[in-house]
Amino acid sequence: MAIVTIVGAGFMGSATAWPLADNGHTVRLVGTHLDAEIITQCKERRFHPKLQRELPPGVQPYHAEEITQAIEGAEIILSGVNSSGVRWIGQTLGPLLRPEHLLIAITKGLDLDASGDLKILPDVLRDELPENIRNQVRLAAIGGPCIAGELAGRRQTCVTFGCRDQAAVERLATAFRTPYYHVWTTTDLVGLEYCAALKNAYTVGVALAFGLLEKSGGTDTAGAHMHNLAAACYGQACTEMEQFLRIVGATRYFAFGLPGAGDLYVTCVGGRTIRLGTLLGKGHSIAEARAILAGLTLEGAAIIEIMGQALPRLEARGLVGPGDLPLLRALIAVIVHGQPLQLRLDAFFGGGGRV
Amino acid sequence: MAIVTIVGAGFMGSATAWPLADNGHTVRLVGTHLDAEIITQCKERRFHPKLQRELPPGVQPYHAEEITQAIEGAEIILSGVNSSGVRWIGQTLGPLLRPEHLLIAITKGLDLDASGDLKILPDVLRDELPENIRNQVRLAAIGGPCIAGELAGRRQTCVTFGCRDQAAVERLATAFRTPYYHVWTTTDLVGLEYCAALKNAYTVGVALAFGLLEKSGGTDTAGAHMHNLAAACYGQACTEMEQFLRIVGATRYFAFGLPGAGDLYVTCVGGRTIRLGTLLGKGHSIAEARAILAGLTLEGAAIIEIMGQALPRLEARGLVGPGDLPLLRALIAVIVHGQPLQLRLDAFFGGGGRV
Repeated sequence: MAIVTIVGAGFMGSATAWPLADNGHTVRLVGTHLDAEIITQCKERRFHPKLQRELPPGVQPYHAEEITQAIEGAEIILSGVNSSGVRWIGQTLGPLLRPEHLLIAITKGLDLDASGDLKILPDVLRDELPENIRNQVRLAAIGGPCIAGELAGRRQTCVTFGCRDQAAVERLATAFRTPYYHVWTTTDLVGLEYCAALKNAYTVGVALAFGLLEKSGGTDTAGAHMHNLAAACYGQACTEMEQFLRIVGATRYFAFGLPGAGDLYVTCVGGRTIRLGTLLGKGHSIAEARAILAGLTLEGAAIIEIMGQALPRLEARGLVGPGDLPLLRALIAVIVHGQPLQLRLDAFFGGGGRV
Repeated sequence: MAIVTIVGAGFMGSATAWPLADNGHTVRLVGTHLDAEIITQCKERRFHPKLQRELPPGVQPYHAEEITQAIEGAEIILSGVNSSGVRWIGQTLGPLLRPEHLLIAITKGLDLDASGDLKILPDVLRDELPENIRNQVRLAAIGGPCIAGELAGRRQTCVTFGCRDQAAVERLATAFRTPYYHVWTTTDLVGLEYCAALKNAYTVGVALAFGLLEKSGGTDTAGAHMHNLAAACYGQACTEMEQFLRIVGATRYFAFGLPGAGDLYVTCVGGRTIRLGTLLGKGHSIAEARAILAGLTLEGAAIIEIMGQALPRLEARGLVGPGDLPLLRALIAVIVHGQPLQLRLDAFFGGGGRV
């Protein structure tokens, strides 16, 4: 059995404590400075206030200030922060890491490197680490459909772990797998991370249909929704994810497997990303939508902003043509350029749906 | 402008009258013998009782007995019957068809030929036609996500028309396209029909999760559903659809485009196929589920039965391996062999998710 330290006590980081504890590992749950109240409740009541569940026996809560003790003796460290915390965690963990540590992140997103190219978050994290350790610590990530509250409820969950090092990803999978937490492995970390990030962008795209329905006055006298439109956006979303996988030379079947179509499905069930897309579909500007959703981290908007910056460069390099990615372009127009929503359905699926 | 005759006045056949009428075609809506009451109401009140909408101006209702007049002068004939009516429509239309007719079907399903191989329904229909006309009439089909009530409500809808004859499918698309009915075209009729049929099977698969949730007592004290499980089934469904497309040499991107992932999404929104899967997930036998859903045509069960017959032959020919299609196999076990539901999640996605 291993010592596993989870850094970040939000929904998803904390939820991984359940399979780990069930496997008999020593699990240490470290809050960030934003999680102080969560950790206090975990310490005092053995109750996680966000997940609304009792902590499994064996999970030890730590405040941010106690991180050095929490890392002591750990084999595996899980980064449970969101995309805005990636640099912080790199800087915080950096001095504490040893070459043999396995580091696995749940963060979803993409960033840009100095030259404006897309960069996966595990590589952003890596670059924050001290040089002497940077290329020795093995970095992995988790992709695939997982609502944290269901994992903590020990509901059947299927995910994919990715790491460029085959032995490391197999070790991690073995440490986490339970009869309810099913883990596939891949060395295609890039493809996995693209799917994990892009599915948040495309969930906003699917949700536009829900907002357009509200804008039109809701269901009509005969009860018609706008599911056909949402479904077209769903198919286009998977199609565009597949194009990105081709561009980066990644595993194309991710588009229609667990990391792509599967993860998109679960993200479309509900939550903040769906609320964002619904507001935009209804006709709200991104500024209005941000005001309404104040206080929530909008990973969907963040990735669309990054893609807005990356797109001109992908076009200049001939990797994306002017007719490609019509759904992403519509999202960028609204979220980055503040333009009114315009969904050009005829441009979907290669542009053959002309009237 | 053309004369277009729709045969079958159920939901989907009738709904195509809206874009056709909006395009200024003369539209004749012919009921089958089962649709007599629908046609009577259409004639007397200009109101479609199933779709709960007034008929568009220019749509002319005909009883089954009036089919000869209804076909007179038509350029396009749309078959609006379900899979159990394909042979009937072939026999009924056969004597009335001329070589220049364009015939387009909305029926979803697959059948078996005399040697036990899978056969798409347009080919089943073709084989019911008189020999002198069989290879002259051009047969097409419609695939992709389309809830009939939304199409009749002129909601944005994206579909794919398939026909082996490029000119015919382009002519059909031109006749049907409106600013709300977006039509893509393909000559890969086989791939399109596989998706249209299989998505009904796999919707049963996704819905198992809804039933398993009910069986477990519903959401737990912290509100956890089983969306993670449904999402895993969704990804596996798309993965298995892609395998079938590979097997028949069809267009693989259908799996993650409009005919596959897109159509699966809309079918999973609700309806009889979801109800069937939910009942099976809950632990009902197929016999019990059929009794509860008495009177409804269960296209999902029908295609799973066909696949149950086709599978041994696909295996014998080396096209399907013993570890392939675990979701379809689970559905066949329950629906064809009356076995208790057993979802082997670890066998999904190539079987790497071992515990």
